[in-house]
Amino acid sequence: MGNIRTDLALEARELYQQQNRGHIPGVKVDEEEVEGVKISRVHIISPLGEESLGKPQGNYITLEAPDIKNRDPEFQETLSKLLAQEIGKLVSLNKKSVTLVVGLGNWNITPDSLGPKVVDRLLVTRHILEYMPDQVDDRLRPVCAVAPGVLGITGIETGEIIKGIVEKIRPDLVIAIDALASRRTDRIGVTIQIADTGISPGSGIGNKRMGLNKETLGVPTIAIGVPTVVYAYTIGRDSLQMLIDQFADQTSPGSQFYQMLKQMDEAQLDALVHQVVTQELGDLVVTPKEIDLLIGYVADVLADGLNLALHENMTIEDIKHFIN
Amino acid sequence: MGNIRTDLALEARELYQQQNRGHIPGVKVDEEEVEGVKISRVHIISPLGEESLGKPQGNYITLEAPDIKNRDPEFQETLSKLLAQEIGKLVSLNKKSVTLVVGLGNWNITPDSLGPKVVDRLLVTRHILEYMPDQVDDRLRPVCAVAPGVLGITGIETGEIIKGIVEKIRPDLVIAIDALASRRTDRIGVTIQIADTGISPGSGIGNKRMGLNKETLGVPTIAIGVPTVVYAYTIGRDSLQMLIDQFADQTSPGSQFYQMLKQMDEAQLDALVHQVVTQELGDLVVTPKEIDLLIGYVADVLADGLNLALHENMTIEDIKHFIN
Amino acid sequence: MGNIRTDLALEARELYQQQNRGHIPGVKVDEEEVEGVKISRVHIISPLGEESLGKPQGNYITLEAPDIKNRDPEFQETLSKLLAQEIGKLVSLNKKSVTLVVGLGNWNITPDSLGPKVVDRLLVTRHILEYMPDQVDDRLRPVCAVAPGVLGITGIETGEIIKGIVEKIRPDLVIAIDALASRRTDRIGVTIQIADTGISPGSGIGNKRMGLNKETLGVPTIAIGVPTVVYAYTIGRDSLQMLIDQFADQTSPGSQFYQMLKQMDEAQLDALVHQVVTQELGDLVVTPKEIDLLIGYVADVLADGLNLALHENMTIEDIKHFIN
Amino acid sequence: MGNIRTDLALEARELYQQQNRGHIPGVKVDEEEVEGVKISRVHIISPLGEESLGKPQGNYITLEAPDIKNRDPEFQETLSKLLAQEIGKLVSLNKKSVTLVVGLGNWNITPDSLGPKVVDRLLVTRHILEYMPDQVDDRLRPVCAVAPGVLGITGIETGEIIKGIVEKIRPDLVIAIDALASRRTDRIGVTIQIADTGISPGSGIGNKRMGLNKETLGVPTIAIGVPTVVYAYTIGRDSLQMLIDQFADQTSPGSQFYQMLKQMDEAQLDALVHQVVTQELGDLVVTPKEIDLLIGYVADVLADGLNLALHENMTIEDIKHFIN
Repeated sequence: MGNIRTDLALEARELYQQQNRGHIPGVKVDEEEVEGVKISRVHIISPLGEESLGKPQGNYITLEAPDIKNRDPEFQETLSKLLAQEIGKLVSLNKKSVTLVVGLGNWNITPDSLGPKVVDRLLVTRHILEYMPDQVDDRLRPVCAVAPGVLGITGIETGEIIKGIVEKIRPDLVIAIDALASRRTDRIGVTIQIADTGISPGSGIGNKRMGLNKETLGVPTIAIGVPTVVYAYTIGRDSLQMLIDQFADQTSPGSQFYQMLKQMDEAQLDALVHQVVTQELGDLVVTPKEIDLLIGYVADVLADGLNLALHENMTIEDIKHFIN
Repeated sequence: MGNIRTDLALEARELYQQQNRGHIPGVKVDEEEVEGVKISRVHIISPLGEESLGKPQGNYITLEAPDIKNRDPEFQETLSKLLAQEIGKLVSLNKKSVTLVVGLGNWNITPDSLGPKVVDRLLVTRHILEYMPDQVDDRLRPVCAVAPGVLGITGIETGEIIKGIVEKIRPDLVIAIDALASRRTDRIGVTIQIADTGISPGSGIGNKRMGLNKETLGVPTIAIGVPTVVYAYTIGRDSLQMLIDQFADQTSPGSQFYQMLKQMDEAQLDALVHQVVTQELGDLVVTPKEIDLLIGYVADVLADGLNLALHENMTIEDIKHFIN
Repeated sequence: MGNIRTDLALEARELYQQQNRGHIPGVKVDEEEVEGVKISRVHIISPLGEESLGKPQGNYITLEAPDIKNRDPEFQETLSKLLAQEIGKLVSLNKKSVTLVVGLGNWNITPDSLGPKVVDRLLVTRHILEYMPDQVDDRLRPVCAVAPGVLGITGIETGEIIKGIVEKIRPDLVIAIDALASRRTDRIGVTIQIADTGISPGSGIGNKRMGLNKETLGVPTIAIGVPTVVYAYTIGRDSLQMLIDQFADQTSPGSQFYQMLKQMDEAQLDALVHQVVTQELGDLVVTPKEIDLLIGYVADVLADGLNLALHENMTIEDIKHFIN
Repeated sequence: MGNIRTDLALEARELYQQQNRGHIPGVKVDEEEVEGVKISRVHIISPLGEESLGKPQGNYITLEAPDIKNRDPEFQETLSKLLAQEIGKLVSLNKKSVTLVVGLGNWNITPDSLGPKVVDRLLVTRHILEYMPDQVDDRLRPVCAVAPGVLGITGIETGEIIKGIVEKIRPDLVIAIDALASRRTDRIGVTIQIADTGISPGSGIGNKRMGLNKETLGVPTIAIGVPTVVYAYTIGRDSLQMLIDQFADQTSPGSQFYQMLKQMDEAQLDALVHQVVTQELGDLVVTPKEIDLLIGYVADVLADGLNLALHENMTIEDIKHFIN
């Protein structure tokens, strides 16, 4: 995959197929469309698949919902319910199972503030169930949540903080929320990835040196991420790709150029583009101008989805009663 | 002390003296005034002193600086330096000593947001010293910082979170910042208490069930607190006390009333006032209208004071260079 | 009324009656209770009434809803609807009537930020109706809104700013939202006053030098206010009053004191209390510790109520669709 | 200039020169470098110059200071002083001259919040000089400031609001602060443009339908702008341009392609790129991930610069005393 950076298994798969055509060994994929939301499930089932996509073995579910931009409250609710369903397929909770939700990211950097904002809107219940177990609605399960901050704010690896808390409170499940980088600007704020592999070191917007997953935490760990930034570099690169593809139809002088470029493999093209584009753009990471709005409604969808998934037989209306 | 609630050893001592006159057994006090700041040091040196003041054995230093309200930058700097000096008297750090600063409180509740705001303004260095030890100015010592949130936000006892982190990163010193309740409105935002006893369960604005101190954390723990609220009840109570005292001079009919009230001990007066006042005021806790401004400048003073105390031979100007 | 400060006509009337018993000349009052909300309507109908209550002639409607503290979403909706109904009784709008909502107050001072927060949550439509009149749902009426800031932020009298805007856009109605001071802590955040007299100079939390009303703006002006602060002084004063009342039943020594105090009229008592209490409390204005939460839900209720009142045949669900 | 969008006269000139080589009729340019800051002054002195650059006649001064990203407090101060000097060259104020600073933009959209943030940090004095003229330091001149919001928030054209206020308070000078769009990502947050032509309709990040300038306001109007966004489209376009330029040296097959592309004029290339690139990127506007930090320090520089320019013989230290 050269130096193409993406946190989405979906895009890793797209890139692989662009370069290799055909079937990816060790990877199973299924897709469906439900109520305007495209759900893709990428299952990496062998070390070969792991290597092909550059992601650890496990299940990656992606919900793509471009219509979320219309900010229709009913569609938002639909999406939250689908999210809750897909989370439900990856975890099994009983009445007593304690879930720790971890909102990763930096609350002072708008595109990196998704995790903390989700934590802010969660229905947190572990303390109530612990101290007043008899007074609590029996649809509630114990949920707790932290937004640990980032290394530059705390001086402590986020992984160390979470591990310290996990060892103290021994949850049955960890769910980590993170803002991601994608390759395509049109995925920003409209794509949700759920992965039962947890968080890999170096993924997401911040500079994580330590992963958050079953190996490091000793507890099943789900990661939920939404792309909020792209590398400016990929915008440049994709523009070139589109221009090249444009010439494919033509018999004009460009076609010779096209043939030449077409013969270059991805790695060569990358090297060329890299040389050209990074002169100016460097490692600039960009986000849409409307990022504040987008983080706001995505945080709502994720929090609603988690609230539905982590408690039992609740509607969003019910949740509102408890949260207020 | 009846049901009088104060987090300040200074006020506990005042109350004791009001009721008992004279010397307090097991307690040593010294006071001085430096550059417009009144510094009181209450040393509780025996179990008897502990019982008299209702505070654990240890050293409590209070800086009273009413002039901080003028928001003169120079006075603010003076106060930060005095704070740094007093912190320096309670701790001994060497070059490698790691300090963990804990900003207690709820960032969504303005009068309880002091701790998180101080953490936000600290010069955090532990990660730099760990990952790039050679590139770092040798006046810097390793400092890390967290704002763990409160039970209602996280569903986890703050003490559990901090203990988990402490066990993971093994700091040499913990400094916990908290917003306090005082008895007198004129202490709000102008009084800083430093105590080497750490934080007791139930103190401060939040509902802490677990203390943060050497016993619970296994590490020396300093608490720094500033009153940001008073119980409305104490405003009512103090008004009555003042009215009663007012009648002391008079020979009018009130004097008989005064004699009666004067004979009541504090506990009786409390009971009477409690009965009367709490009907309306209940457990209402109030804060000045200007609390946002006040939290802002107090957080600046505490952060500057900590930055000066925790690093070596730094000026506030130096610190600004590093923070920016 | 001595130096008792209140922005509520309801409290001005209570005070008058406490001091004068019986009927107030020039003032008509009716009260009802609807779905847990006490609605009081004070009509000041003559200059005599104006003088008695210290408020300009006009209609003052107060909704008292202590249950709002439970933050039940359904009750909040009920309250918004009642508010919309009461606003509807004071104004008459046709399809083309332009309303300008003015959110008074300082967004940097939490208890004074109610007005700006309401403006933030309004369904603003004037620009859409002006530029794309054909594409707009015909239940929408033209609404515009400003939060002009306060004198200390802008250096300009708020009244000048509003008058400048009013002369430019010529609305048919101005509605000004403001945070108020009340006499009783238990009214904070649970009482809404609607007045067709607009805003008087010096009322509310800020220091207004100029009124906002039909005389100054040339347009009918409704004021909607919610108490968010009390003078600490009134807490002290009310505590004394309660203690005095407490002794009324007794035959103990206190009764003599009580007789004496009872003979003092309000003005004398005020003078006495003033002398005693203001020594410490000065002109301290306080607000409950939970002011951030309280401003949040009151702003929701006011914005919903205004959205329902200013557009036609809308439900709160409909409004949400338009706002998102 | 085709569909290339830039708010900087500097970039309009660069584009013109790229396309036309040589001297621009009706435009005078001088440049200097002072203490690491590149200062360019573009003077559009005739209608011909106006047409060539697509900007109204007048003076455009640009300060380019890439080093501001290091956030060195001393360099920030240097930049503020240079800004104050350049402002001083465009305006002449006497002791009584009233300046109205207008912070344009939307405080809810981080990259558009520059104007309101600058207003927040200004030393506002008009009210003090009006109400207490004798108690005021005679270096202070009357400054007032508003952040009027944007059309989508208020329902009122920003120009109407400002005109209403200007007619009411009759300032001698208006200074409007705005966030701009540039063509190059490396100008974001490091370039300041000062123009004595005011604000043109449609410039800046928001959708302004009305200009703010001497014609519309009747008062000399200075605009100060800083680019905070770029069109994603220009990133794609510039990447292509760089790739094309890259082939210029080569004799490989690409050279034929290069020759072809080189023959296309800017307009044709634009049309081609537009067709290709806008398929995906549409009118996406992007901003760097670190936009929150960047807005913070740019607002500090602008506010300091304005405070120095608008008052007399002040240092930044002096200003801090007055602001606190």
